[in-house]
Amino acid sequence: MRYQEFTIEGRNAVIEAFRSGKTIDKLFILDGCQDGPIMTIKREAKKQDTLVKFVTKERLDQLSETGKHQGVIAQAAAYEYAQVEDILENARQKGEAPFIFLLDNIEDPHNLGAIIRTANLAGAHGVIIPKNRAAGLTATVAKTSAGALNYTPVAKVTNIGKTIEDLKKEGLWFVCGDMNGEVMYRVNLTGPIGLVIGNEGEGVSRLVKEKCDFTAAIPMKGDIDSLNASVAAGVLAFEIVRQRMA
Amino acid sequence: MRYQEFTIEGRNAVIEAFRSGKTIDKLFILDGCQDGPIMTIKREAKKQDTLVKFVTKERLDQLSETGKHQGVIAQAAAYEYAQVEDILENARQKGEAPFIFLLDNIEDPHNLGAIIRTANLAGAHGVIIPKNRAAGLTATVAKTSAGALNYTPVAKVTNIGKTIEDLKKEGLWFVCGDMNGEVMYRVNLTGPIGLVIGNEGEGVSRLVKEKCDFTAAIPMKGDIDSLNASVAAGVLAFEIVRQRMA
Repeated sequence: MRYQEFTIEGRNAVIEAFRSGKTIDKLFILDGCQDGPIMTIKREAKKQDTLVKFVTKERLDQLSETGKHQGVIAQAAAYEYAQVEDILENARQKGEAPFIFLLDNIEDPHNLGAIIRTANLAGAHGVIIPKNRAAGLTATVAKTSAGALNYTPVAKVTNIGKTIEDLKKEGLWFVCGDMNGEVMYRVNLTGPIGLVIGNEGEGVSRLVKEKCDFTAAIPMKGDIDSLNASVAAGVLAFEIVRQRMA
Repeated sequence: MRYQEFTIEGRNAVIEAFRSGKTIDKLFILDGCQDGPIMTIKREAKKQDTLVKFVTKERLDQLSETGKHQGVIAQAAAYEYAQVEDILENARQKGEAPFIFLLDNIEDPHNLGAIIRTANLAGAHGVIIPKNRAAGLTATVAKTSAGALNYTPVAKVTNIGKTIEDLKKEGLWFVCGDMNGEVMYRVNLTGPIGLVIGNEGEGVSRLVKEKCDFTAAIPMKGDIDSLNASVAAGVLAFEIVRQRMA
């Protein structure tokens, strides 16, 4: 399994985990506990927007793996990222033209999880996410991915634009989803392809968009601006599936 | 505006709101407050899985509309539901064949909001949800719908199956999304149509499925079971859009 959850127990261990920059998914604190170290932990949790639950001693004992929780247990996750090369290898092994999702700064972990789930079911060979700013692979992502995180390789890269250039040398074409593009039914989406999905608020960034070969738009009829990012990713991905099946 | 948020302030008013079964979206409690009524409110909040935030007096004063919060403010929402007839009228006014979403027990408010957002952008004339068990229209739904809740009428009905029968008399055809159906590209989805989306875990219920004219499947290639409900709804909805545009 590429993805694993683990607990960090005890005051110092939890404070240390926060300070070393580890992403804590959830924090369980003994209800009523108000001493110094606990207050420090609460402050750190607030800073990082960690979900805090105040629970009974019985619940903590139940959650504890060491039996020495001292009134606080943190849940964190570790994920063994893939390399971009692993994704290409995945396509080669299946004897298929590569189909890769590139996420240009998806921020919401629910969206990230749902998109990895979609990538798996659309038959994509992997997902590429950027190192900075965007959501990383937390327990929420794992849960929303409904298990897909254990099958579909996810690679983390420093620069999405640079990765697109490298992958073009491998023969991939890139399409980004954007309202101002050509209606997706009229864009040729067959062959080795990278589907670029933009940030929830801002869409695909200008620098990344410039590197794409095509811009494909979902035809919109309504009164509001745009689809949810994971829904848009799904609609675009299955247009690729449709064209590949035809 | 069909949708409005409001606050309920003070201990008795909040306890009363919980006891009368009103859906409280979010609860703000003065940090450190531990007296009897506050403990009662916390218990009710726990029972209903309401999001509770412990905040400073300054924050409560800021949120308060009456100035008399007594350490507790609840946020709730009210929505003026449409009638099924309003949805048909909406289609008539636009001179279009009706296109309606029917949600057979969507439970997650994020999914409900995202689906209403999709319905709006796919040009659907309305959304029908069941009265019982399923998610209702809370602040989370309104937020996730990205404003669509104010444009796309939502009707609440006692029995989805019965509503399908009534709408068949108006000339609508019904298609439900289900993995065991015909691949959606081969199902004729033009004309007056009702798209039935099932529950996150169990899909479309048997009784509702039996009333549908077609069962359409999204072609799946991956290792896991199914798409996120709002993504599946989006993919099916835009297949309807594609066929209607062709």
